[in-house]
Order: sequence, then C-alpha cells, then structure tokens
Amino acid sequence: MPKLFDRVTIAGVGLIGGSLALAARAAGLIGEVVGYGRTEANLQTALRRGIIDRYSLEPLDAARDADLLLLAVPVRACGTVARACAPALRADAVVSDVASVKQSVMQDVEAALPAGLSFVGAHPIAGTEESGAAAAVAQLFHASRCVLTPGPHTNPAALAKIRALWEGVGMHVEEMDAARHDEIVAWTSHLPHVVAFSAAAAVADTDEAMALLSGPSFRDLTRVAASSPEMWTDIFLANAAHIGRSVGAYAATLTELRRAISAGDAAAVTKLLERARDARRRWTARAAGGVG
Amino acid sequence: MPKLFDRVTIAGVGLIGGSLALAARAAGLIGEVVGYGRTEANLQTALRRGIIDRYSLEPLDAARDADLLLLAVPVRACGTVARACAPALRADAVVSDVASVKQSVMQDVEAALPAGLSFVGAHPIAGTEESGAAAAVAQLFHASRCVLTPGPHTNPAALAKIRALWEGVGMHVEEMDAARHDEIVAWTSHLPHVVAFSAAAAVADTDEAMALLSGPSFRDLTRVAASSPEMWTDIFLANAAHIGRSVGAYAATLTELRRAISAGDAAAVTKLLERARDARRRWTARAAGGVG
Repeated sequence: MPKLFDRVTIAGVGLIGGSLALAARAAGLIGEVVGYGRTEANLQTALRRGIIDRYSLEPLDAARDADLLLLAVPVRACGTVARACAPALRADAVVSDVASVKQSVMQDVEAALPAGLSFVGAHPIAGTEESGAAAAVAQLFHASRCVLTPGPHTNPAALAKIRALWEGVGMHVEEMDAARHDEIVAWTSHLPHVVAFSAAAAVADTDEAMALLSGPSFRDLTRVAASSPEMWTDIFLANAAHIGRSVGAYAATLTELRRAISAGDAAAVTKLLERARDARRRWTARAAGGVG
Repeated sequence: MPKLFDRVTIAGVGLIGGSLALAARAAGLIGEVVGYGRTEANLQTALRRGIIDRYSLEPLDAARDADLLLLAVPVRACGTVARACAPALRADAVVSDVASVKQSVMQDVEAALPAGLSFVGAHPIAGTEESGAAAAVAQLFHASRCVLTPGPHTNPAALAKIRALWEGVGMHVEEMDAARHDEIVAWTSHLPHVVAFSAAAAVADTDEAMALLSGPSFRDLTRVAASSPEMWTDIFLANAAHIGRSVGAYAATLTELRRAISAGDAAAVTKLLERARDARRRWTARAAGGVG
C-alpha cells in the first residue's frame, strides 16, 4: 500500500506530535519521520523511543523534501515555524497542525506559506495533562474525534489526505467552520482549563496541610492544571473572545449558586443542582457518541 | 473474634452506607445489618444484594436493640433520624455518621440523643458521583482517609470502636477538630462540587450539539455534577460560611485570569498558570500519602 506521506517533519515532538508519529507509523501511513524542535533533550528522547528517525534544530534542514509538515508547536509559534520551514518542503507538500484554536492559526499559517503550499487546519480532540515526547503513546487518538476546518483556500486533495491520516489512526473525523470550532472548544475544553488553573492557583495561597484531605473530586477538578503553561497561555489569548463568553456565562452561574448558598435558599440551590445534573447527563449521552 | 457491633442499623443504605455494610461484613466486623430508609425500592435492592439482612420503614423497628446506628442520610436529616431511632437502641449503643460536614451534624445529633448514647462524628473521604444501594461496593474505602471529629462530649470507648470499624475496612483514620475539618473540606471537596455544578448548569443554556466536541477535560470538570442534588444542597447550606470563603477566593482568582486573558497579557496569564501547576503538583504529592 502506498504511504500517504513519504517524509513527515514534525515540528514539536510532544504528546500530540509524538503520538501521531507513533500511531501513523504503526498503521503504515507514513514513511520517514524527522523531528524539529528547540529542545534537543526532547528530540533525543523521541529518537530513543523510535518516534522519529532523525532530527534537526535547523528548520530548513528538518523540513527538507518533506511532503507533510505537521505543526505541533504552541499556537503562537505556528506561523513562524511554517514560514521558517516552507522553503525546504516539497512543492506538493501539505502543511497541517493540531492546535486547539483554529481561526488564528489558519490566518497565521496561510499568511506564512508561499503560493502552492496547502494548509489544512486540524484539531485532534485527545490528550492528557502530560507533555513531551516521553508522554507520547500510539493509542492516544483511538475512537476520539478530530475536527478539520477547511476554509476558502483549502486544497481538497490536501484535505482528503489529512482526513485519511487521522482516520488511519482511529479518529472520527468531521469538518467544521473554524469560527464555529473555536466557539465550541471555548466551552468544552478552554473553560475546563481556565477553571482548573484558577482552582489550583487559588489553593496556592492556602495551608498545604489541607491537601491531605483532598480526594477524587479535587483531583479531577485540577487535573488539567498540570498542563503546559506556555501552551495554554497561547490558546487562551488566541481564543480570548470566545473564552470571554463561555467563562463569563459560567462565572454568572457560579455567582448565582454562591448567592443561593449564602442566603440559605435551599429551593434555589436544589433547582440549580438539578439543572446541572440534567445538563451533564444530556452532554454525556451526546459525547458518548465518539469522544474518549 | 468478637464482632465490634452485634447489630447495626444503617439509616440510608446508599453508596456510603451500603458500601460500609458490605466491607464491614466481609471483614467480619459486624453482625446483623438492618436497613432503614424512606424508599422501599432501594431497601429491596440492598436486601437482594446481600447488603442488609432485613429492613424496616419504621425507625423504632429498624433500630430495635442495635448497638450501632449509622446515619448515612442527607446532612439535614441526621438529627431527626437520630431522634426517631434513639429510643429503640441498646443502652450502650454508639451513634455515628458519614457526613461531609461535621460541626452542624455534631450539634444536631448530640442534641437529639438522650443521655448515655454516644455520638462519634466521622467522615470517610471516599465516594463517587453515584448514589443508592445499587452503587455500593465493598472496596470503596480502601486506602482512603477517614476523619473522626471527637468533641468534649465524645465517649472514648465509642470513639475507639468507630476507629476500629473504619480501619477494619482499610481506611487511614485521623482525628481532627470539627471546625477545622469543615474549613478544609470547603476547599478540597465542596469547592470542586460548587464548580462542577456551576459549569454543568452553565452549559444547560447552550447548544447541546457542542457536547459532541467535549473530551476528557470537560468530563472530569463536571463528573461530580452527577451527584445527588438533595444531598449536596444540605452540605452546601450546612457549611455555607466556610464555602463562602473557599469559593470566594477561587472566584477572585478566576476573575484575575479572565482579566489577564481579556487584556492579552501573556506574562500575567503564564505566571498564574505556573502558580497553578506548581500548587497542583505540591497538593498531589501531599495527597498521594493516602487518599484515593
């Protein structure tokens, strides 16, 4: 079976980039894998684990004759890295990404690429709070959802290849407008991260001995606060407008519950809790359709 | 080996009460188990699952000659149930509970019991978002922490027996002042529940199709919003003052992060995220000492 891509350059061989390399290789979808990054120790880990065949700290060297450049770097770096790598890519190369925000990345990368090179925006909805090549696992994407966000400049052949890549590693792929994607993830992913970081930062000023009584609810609430601050700063700023709305609506509900508790209004508290339980049940039933 | 208690009346055969009956029986710590509750269907489930030997919907009948009355009902009902059961208990009976709030429950139950009957406040820090006898499992308490909150009226012999009961089902038991307990759980347990209920209630007003893109971070954030609204209304109101402080501090941090995101202040966002990550790391390391 011919491979989808003969040579793949992964810019940012972390949890997502590294896991895709492992999964796509295991599925026979790609040929040589070249790592590109800033941190040599991480690239050496990737090499040792068989995630990449070789690496370079020089973009033109890393991207030479690749027919896929996968941008798996923090959101704000996508345009810069695409611009630095582009001149060395094959003329028919596809550029894609894995970012949690799509509008700003599409704008940045499309502006950075010369005519002829196609960008396909992609967001595989999978991951953990861990990061780096050491955390990569081939099974990360299995049965989860991947959103592709084609725009007016997207090449249909490039789109089809990126779809085949993510489907080939086990994901349910769907296409969506980039703005709609960003609106949704402001609720489903960015809100949980804002909340987790805020809760974990709030306990920073408390007596640490309290941690001894923390159980599963605190652990789950703050799990994603172990995520990379650099990566998430970029995501928050790139999707600030949508996040303002999701976090704003959440904060208003939080205030409503605080007030009802403080007023001792049992009926109002119960009503809000029932609304929450029912909504959670509906969302869980929907999500069970595919997302891990 | 003599049993710790010959006849145990469990008021509220739900996740916690039912799991304790299963675990304590498996460990040979208790004799007959009698269920008491309002919902006959749940008591029948408990009977069918071998959690209880028999049940009654009448408190005096259910509590007759028991030497342990375990209150596993919603916080606000503890005093009422203790008062209703007390006359039928053995003269040397111990009364205990499993509530997430200790100050108000200690006051209510001690006021409800006649002289001679001893109350021991207990909070096994274990559980899931599920409820009812159907959810009970014998392993629920293993390697988690149980807090006992003896006060000036607590009988030392009764305290020792309740300690032996929880240690006998695998918990790490420690003693603490009830007010200090309530202050701590306002952070470690009640805050996560306020946040989860608020987030789930906030999405109730959104487009449900968004749920399709929800992943592990949203699921973890809202997991405990599936908990019983009745039980949690009671807990929130009973610990309102401490919760006002923990949720207030959290809400202030949330506002700080929202403002930094909205202002595009990358340095401030990253600094807060790093503070969160570091605090989460410290808390996780502490909690790893025993809580599941």
